[in-house]
Amino acid sequence: MTRLVSYDEAPPEVRAVFDDIKALRGVADVNNFWKALAVHPPTLARTWDSLKQVMAPGALDPLVKEMLYLAASAAAGCTYCVASHTAAAKARGMTPEMHGELLAVLGMAAETNRLAEALRVPVDPGFE
Amino acid sequence: MTRLVSYDEAPPEVRAVFDDIKALRGVADVNNFWKALAVHPPTLARTWDSLKQVMAPGALDPLVKEMLYLAASAAAGCTYCVASHTAAAKARGMTPEMHGELLAVLGMAAETNRLAEALRVPVDPGFE
Amino acid sequence: MTRLVSYDEAPPEVRAVFDDIKALRGVADVNNFWKALAVHPPTLARTWDSLKQVMAPGALDPLVKEMLYLAASAAAGCTYCVASHTAAAKARGMTPEMHGELLAVLGMAAETNRLAEALRVPVDPGFE
Amino acid sequence: MTRLVSYDEAPPEVRAVFDDIKALRGVADVNNFWKALAVHPPTLARTWDSLKQVMAPGALDPLVKEMLYLAASAAAGCTYCVASHTAAAKARGMTPEMHGELLAVLGMAAETNRLAEALRVPVDPGFE
Amino acid sequence: MTRLVSYDEAPPEVRAVFDDIKALRGVADVNNFWKALAVHPPTLARTWDSLKQVMAPGALDPLVKEMLYLAASAAAGCTYCVASHTAAAKARGMTPEMHGELLAVLGMAAETNRLAEALRVPVDPGFE
Amino acid sequence: MTRLVSYDEAPPEVRAVFDDIKALRGVADVNNFWKALAVHPPTLARTWDSLKQVMAPGALDPLVKEMLYLAASAAAGCTYCVASHTAAAKARGMTPEMHGELLAVLGMAAETNRLAEALRVPVDPGFE
Repeated sequence: MTRLVSYDEAPPEVRAVFDDIKALRGVADVNNFWKALAVHPPTLARTWDSLKQVMAPGALDPLVKEMLYLAASAAAGCTYCVASHTAAAKARGMTPEMHGELLAVLGMAAETNRLAEALRVPVDPGFE
Repeated sequence: MTRLVSYDEAPPEVRAVFDDIKALRGVADVNNFWKALAVHPPTLARTWDSLKQVMAPGALDPLVKEMLYLAASAAAGCTYCVASHTAAAKARGMTPEMHGELLAVLGMAAETNRLAEALRVPVDPGFE
Repeated sequence: MTRLVSYDEAPPEVRAVFDDIKALRGVADVNNFWKALAVHPPTLARTWDSLKQVMAPGALDPLVKEMLYLAASAAAGCTYCVASHTAAAKARGMTPEMHGELLAVLGMAAETNRLAEALRVPVDPGFE
Repeated sequence: MTRLVSYDEAPPEVRAVFDDIKALRGVADVNNFWKALAVHPPTLARTWDSLKQVMAPGALDPLVKEMLYLAASAAAGCTYCVASHTAAAKARGMTPEMHGELLAVLGMAAETNRLAEALRVPVDPGFE
Repeated sequence: MTRLVSYDEAPPEVRAVFDDIKALRGVADVNNFWKALAVHPPTLARTWDSLKQVMAPGALDPLVKEMLYLAASAAAGCTYCVASHTAAAKARGMTPEMHGELLAVLGMAAETNRLAEALRVPVDPGFE
Repeated sequence: MTRLVSYDEAPPEVRAVFDDIKALRGVADVNNFWKALAVHPPTLARTWDSLKQVMAPGALDPLVKEMLYLAASAAAGCTYCVASHTAAAKARGMTPEMHGELLAVLGMAAETNRLAEALRVPVDPGFE
């Protein structure tokens, strides 16, 4: 079994990260991903710090960022990440119809990615 | 070298697909991907037909669809597809800042995908 | 540049493998893959020995084995391997039409693989 | 939990696809993959339509197509797809010995794919 | 369910491999991987023979080899392999701190791999 | 062509990162990866900051970290990363023999990863 570090047993530097996640997200507890990552406190702190920066609103709105995260995670075949970012995207407003269209894009990308690789298609000069 | 089928040498069923692509996109010629795929006309016709359906405006706008396509293609490591969909997303309005944020999300997704898999994190009951 | 070990500069244990490849395949020289692998003679010898066993005729005929090798290599996105095994499959009798159908299967597999993962579909009891 | 749409609760356009799958395959119910995909009826209909075309007998016989599908799915690491296409290939006549040889080819392809990439082997002029 | 071949039901050529694994590793029974692979005795024998050669002490010590195996398996997203090689690396002396640093390297590699691909960075002349 | 930002045209926040890389590594110029990443200065700064932390000496020595980075990058099929981290590992003392053994481990990991997935091997209770 993967070891999951709970708040109660966590050392102070882990609790500080957990507290920051809970405050920013307004949740009562952190997800298993963070509890698992807490086995290496420096990686926990650095990963959370990076994620907070990357997912902050910017030129792309938070829902689009979440859907991009989901698309990348699904393309990489990460089961946990698909589950967590599907939930997160729904929480940010992804409707069933939007989810269906995201799935359709994912599937077509997978198909054409593989065809392009299997045919070793040369990059068009016009793309540059 | 990958064989690329030009319009001049293409059989009628291939020309019909090329004509449809050119008309819908308002371009003078099709990309290498389609010229390579033309070695198997049924796959060319089916792939274009599917792509046309999937990328049509719907619950997601065309720029978001292109960025999702790019994210999935980059996560899958398809060089040709990254080149073609970066160009397509820029043509639909992706600014350098939006591109930068998309790259940042892609990178973070890759990192957390791998950490979640390497730690074999169990899916949280709350995601379901 | 990748170092490619030519026959002339190769030590005896590498020449022995190169000679065996050339004799079994009836070719004048070995492919770049083997010349690159020759930087580590034990890996060269072990890989060739395994490949020889695996690709020998058995319950599956050599053309089917080559097409399976090509499908797996394309699914893994290995450019060199796609090039070498497309050539090998053609040499064993893969026609353009067979190649086209193989590509179509590859593309559909990629699409449905990703949809199954993105939807986290539970395995049907009947498959077991 | 992934939502699986049963026949009873399915809207007419989903029932039409389910009926077609059941009739073509001579089965009493469709697999979970189709029930999961039914959350987005246009993707369900398009995917089934494409799959039906691609897997129809042609230059490659149905068993070879199923084994290629299995090889591509295993190379992509899709657990559900490995389970479903192993079952489908067995139903079409894949013997334990054929399955063993397919596994051996898959394993060797994975090993040589990675070696070719890690050595960045240049494509031989003769392959073109 | 995956068929796992137990020692009692195994044919002599499988028992010979199982006996060799148990003797070399000093264990009472072999892992599920070998029991599953035993459905194809030639692949079982060849794989074990190769693994024994590759993992023997050499220029790299056994713990480093195990950690490289784990890193490669995690990068490839193989759940079973992550579980088995994490256990094996711990048995050879990987401490929690070493495991944490390995995870951090894995995560950074994933992130920079994807950024390099998404930006299609040209190889520096100085690397060659 | 990928845009590469040179020192001369770089804004101050990019120059600061380039200066830090050059000072820490004792090199006259930064690699293309950093010049490409400089199109999005916040991602450049964050990625370098993370990499510096992760690759610093710790429970694992710098050569082992570089070889793990190389193994993970090769397993992920990133050509640029394989080139850059092979060069970096050699600079830190990886001999040709160590490189050969690393390649052998990579190849075996790829083969057994795929066999474990294709056989859907259940995790042994003893691994936990």
